[in-house]
Amino acid sequence: MANLCMIIQYDGTRYDGWQVQTSTQMTIQGKLQRVLSFIFGEEVEVIGSGRTDAGVHAKGQVANVHVKGNPDCEILLADLNAHLPEDIAVTKLWEVDERFHARFSAQKKIYLYRIHTGIASNVFERKYMYSYEGKALDVERMKKAAQYLIGEHDFKSFCGNKKMKKSTVREIYEIVITEKEDEIEIRYTGNGFLQNMVRILTGTLIEVGNGTKKPEDIPVILEKMNREAAGYTAPPQGLCLMEVNY
Amino acid sequence: MANLCMIIQYDGTRYDGWQVQTSTQMTIQGKLQRVLSFIFGEEVEVIGSGRTDAGVHAKGQVANVHVKGNPDCEILLADLNAHLPEDIAVTKLWEVDERFHARFSAQKKIYLYRIHTGIASNVFERKYMYSYEGKALDVERMKKAAQYLIGEHDFKSFCGNKKMKKSTVREIYEIVITEKEDEIEIRYTGNGFLQNMVRILTGTLIEVGNGTKKPEDIPVILEKMNREAAGYTAPPQGLCLMEVNY
Repeated sequence: MANLCMIIQYDGTRYDGWQVQTSTQMTIQGKLQRVLSFIFGEEVEVIGSGRTDAGVHAKGQVANVHVKGNPDCEILLADLNAHLPEDIAVTKLWEVDERFHARFSAQKKIYLYRIHTGIASNVFERKYMYSYEGKALDVERMKKAAQYLIGEHDFKSFCGNKKMKKSTVREIYEIVITEKEDEIEIRYTGNGFLQNMVRILTGTLIEVGNGTKKPEDIPVILEKMNREAAGYTAPPQGLCLMEVNY
Repeated sequence: MANLCMIIQYDGTRYDGWQVQTSTQMTIQGKLQRVLSFIFGEEVEVIGSGRTDAGVHAKGQVANVHVKGNPDCEILLADLNAHLPEDIAVTKLWEVDERFHARFSAQKKIYLYRIHTGIASNVFERKYMYSYEGKALDVERMKKAAQYLIGEHDFKSFCGNKKMKKSTVREIYEIVITEKEDEIEIRYTGNGFLQNMVRILTGTLIEVGNGTKKPEDIPVILEKMNREAAGYTAPPQGLCLMEVNY
């Protein structure tokens, strides 16, 4: 038996997200499991660092899988990529300790949300950005609002799953907002994120940026522990899971 | 009357190239003409700096169009982009001298050809690179071969149109080959390029890189003035028209 760790890149555009749900859905985990099960001749389970929503992309999703035998990682990597669809790629693959678990062992995650603010769409990046067409965004206000989100908080107001039974406490280490010519990028680093959390954080920061909300509303939203208090859920195509650290 | 100059970006994946040919084909020029004719209420002709082949992209195609009246360029730019499909965008638009002609006035063109050489495909850039799966490419050999192409030559051997009646003499100012982690980029700068010329130059440089041809074969190929002497036509998706200078 070997426990293999993989770094996975995917263009989430045509997928129903990471997680296998029903057999008719197109999922990243499902595609990986099908190819690996075919290669190893038995059913395998691919354990991701976490789910990503339908339409969300990844440059650095991490997963592990227990397989039989002692496969040559270089050959397996080429074999995997030869069988995966062109919008999913395994960029690295290596053997790890049998106790390594991509979800439970994760320490830190980095997500990037890209908002396109230019008049002309960027034709090459259009599937990887949210084309924001509302009022102009005041980045300084957004930065001020972001400061209230840093640290350990109960993010229940920013959780898309209203039936969430487990703890909704998470720690955000950093939110870096960068303004480019036609684009605003928001990079979130934290110990973990709830369902839809990055997208709801982004929608809320956009509402601060366009004047619908004030930076000082953030602590109030956090206290309310109610999804209705936060902003809208920004669309999935702007979001990309960049890195998972262990 | 006003003569308007535009910079155009397009993802050429689903188009039959720049130039309008039959009415049933999907072309970039055709899309632009349809939108501009609709806005101005009369047929207009969009003059590009040159054709690009089916499947070729552009970040800096230049075109001009004569229109009636004295349109507000800022409003027109927004209007145009609102009506164009999402894989075509006009990034700049301004009024120029009535004698300006995007094709005849062009002095210099820059094309970029991207060759993906990694094992895992780059899922985000896959439509904008040629996935080369042949023997390893020796970039030093390619650079040596490229030197023979610099300067004014008759590029008949590198012309895809065998019935070409006009001069096939062109000047290449520079060919810069850059090796990245999983990619080789070739940037061509010249006073103009013949039909398929950049793709045939690239196919020939690849054949030098993989050992099929020698760098010293280049002057022989040039002398032969015969398309059969040169290498294959590299596929269109790796090519992008970056810039046209006037």
